[in-house]
Amino acid sequence: MSLHGKFITLEGTEGAGKSTNLKYIEAWLAQKGIELVVTREPGGTPISEAVRGILLNTEFTEMTANTELLLMFAARNQHIEEKILPALQAGKWVVSDRFTDASYAYQGAARGLEFDRIASLEHWVQQGFQPDLTFVFDLPIEVGMQRVKARGGQTDRFEQEKADFFEKVRDAYLQRAALAPQRYAVLNAAKTLEEVQAEIDTHLLTLLQHQG
Amino acid sequence: MSLHGKFITLEGTEGAGKSTNLKYIEAWLAQKGIELVVTREPGGTPISEAVRGILLNTEFTEMTANTELLLMFAARNQHIEEKILPALQAGKWVVSDRFTDASYAYQGAARGLEFDRIASLEHWVQQGFQPDLTFVFDLPIEVGMQRVKARGGQTDRFEQEKADFFEKVRDAYLQRAALAPQRYAVLNAAKTLEEVQAEIDTHLLTLLQHQG
Repeated sequence: MSLHGKFITLEGTEGAGKSTNLKYIEAWLAQKGIELVVTREPGGTPISEAVRGILLNTEFTEMTANTELLLMFAARNQHIEEKILPALQAGKWVVSDRFTDASYAYQGAARGLEFDRIASLEHWVQQGFQPDLTFVFDLPIEVGMQRVKARGGQTDRFEQEKADFFEKVRDAYLQRAALAPQRYAVLNAAKTLEEVQAEIDTHLLTLLQHQG
Repeated sequence: MSLHGKFITLEGTEGAGKSTNLKYIEAWLAQKGIELVVTREPGGTPISEAVRGILLNTEFTEMTANTELLLMFAARNQHIEEKILPALQAGKWVVSDRFTDASYAYQGAARGLEFDRIASLEHWVQQGFQPDLTFVFDLPIEVGMQRVKARGGQTDRFEQEKADFFEKVRDAYLQRAALAPQRYAVLNAAKTLEEVQAEIDTHLLTLLQHQG
C-alpha cells in the first residue's frame, strides 16, 4: 500500500490551542496547494461520530477504562479504513485533531490502563501505521482550564475530570514525545500565537520538503 | 476471583429457537430455586445496548468487519465487567442470548476475519473467561429463514444478509462445538420442542450437579 500524502495529528490537553492552530495549519497547507482532509477523533466518519456520542455521554458513568479504550479503537479503525487511508492513498494530506497518542495519555496514563495493553490494540488496528508528524500543544493544566472555562458551554464526560487527571495526560504526551522525537513537535502553548505558529511553519516546511 | 454461579450462553442462526428455549431455561432454573440474570449480546447494559444500536443500524453500510468486531468486543467488555462477572461472583447464574462464539461465527467465518485476530481480542477482553455451557441451536438455514419471515417485522443489518452468509455462521458453530465438545451442547432444532427441551433438561441437570 503506497501512501502519497502525509498524516499530521494534533494532541494536547484542553485549552492548549489545538483548534486555533488546526485552522492555521489548514490555511498554511491550502496556500501551498496541498489537498487536505481535516478530521478529528474520536469521530471523523458517521459510524465513528456515533461511537463518539457514546464516549462523551455524561450519563455513561459506569463505562470502564477497558470499554472506553475498545470504543476509541473501534471508532479509530473505521476512521482509518474509511477516511484516512483512502485520502493518503489518493495523495491528499490528512490533519486529525487527536489520534492514538490520546489513547496512551487518557486511557493509559490518566485512567491507569497498562501501555502494553494499549499497544496490543494499536497493533491490532494500525499494524504499524503512524502519523508522519504529531504536534503536541503543551500548556500548564490550570492555564488551559481557565481558557476552557472562559469559552463556556457544557462539559463532556472527559472534560468533567479533575486537574490531576489532566496532569497525567500532559505528562504522558511529553514522555511519548521524548521517546520518539523524530515524530513529535512539542510546542510551548504558553508562548504567543505568533511564536507558536512560527514553529509550526518550520515543521510543516520540513515535512513538505521530505515529501519529495 | 471466585465465580459461584454458572454462565450459560445460547447460540445459533436466526429462527433456530433461541428465544423460545431461553424462556424455557429461565423457567427451569427458577424452579430449581436458582437466582438468574437473563441477558443478551450485543447489549445487556445501557452502554452495550447503545453500541448495539450502532451495530444493527441498517444505515451504517460502510462498517468494516474490523470495526464491527471491535464494537462487539467493546459492548462485550462492558457487559462482562458491569453485569456478568458481578452476578457470577454473587452466586447468581447468567444466561446470555449470544456471546463470543457469535463473533467467531459472524465476523470470523461469515465476514472473513482471521480466527487468530478474533482470539487476540477475546484474550484482551476475557483473559480466559468462558461460558460453562453453550447451547448451539442447529437448524438448516432455509427452515430458520422461513420461521423468521413468518414472524414478520423489520430486519436489522445482520438479518439482511443472504443465505450463504448464514450457512457459514452455522458451519462455524458446528466446527467450534466439535473442537470443544465438553463446553457445547449442539441441539437439533428441527426436532420437536419436547425433544429439544428434554435434551436441555439433561444438560442443565449435569451442570447443576457439577456445581456441588
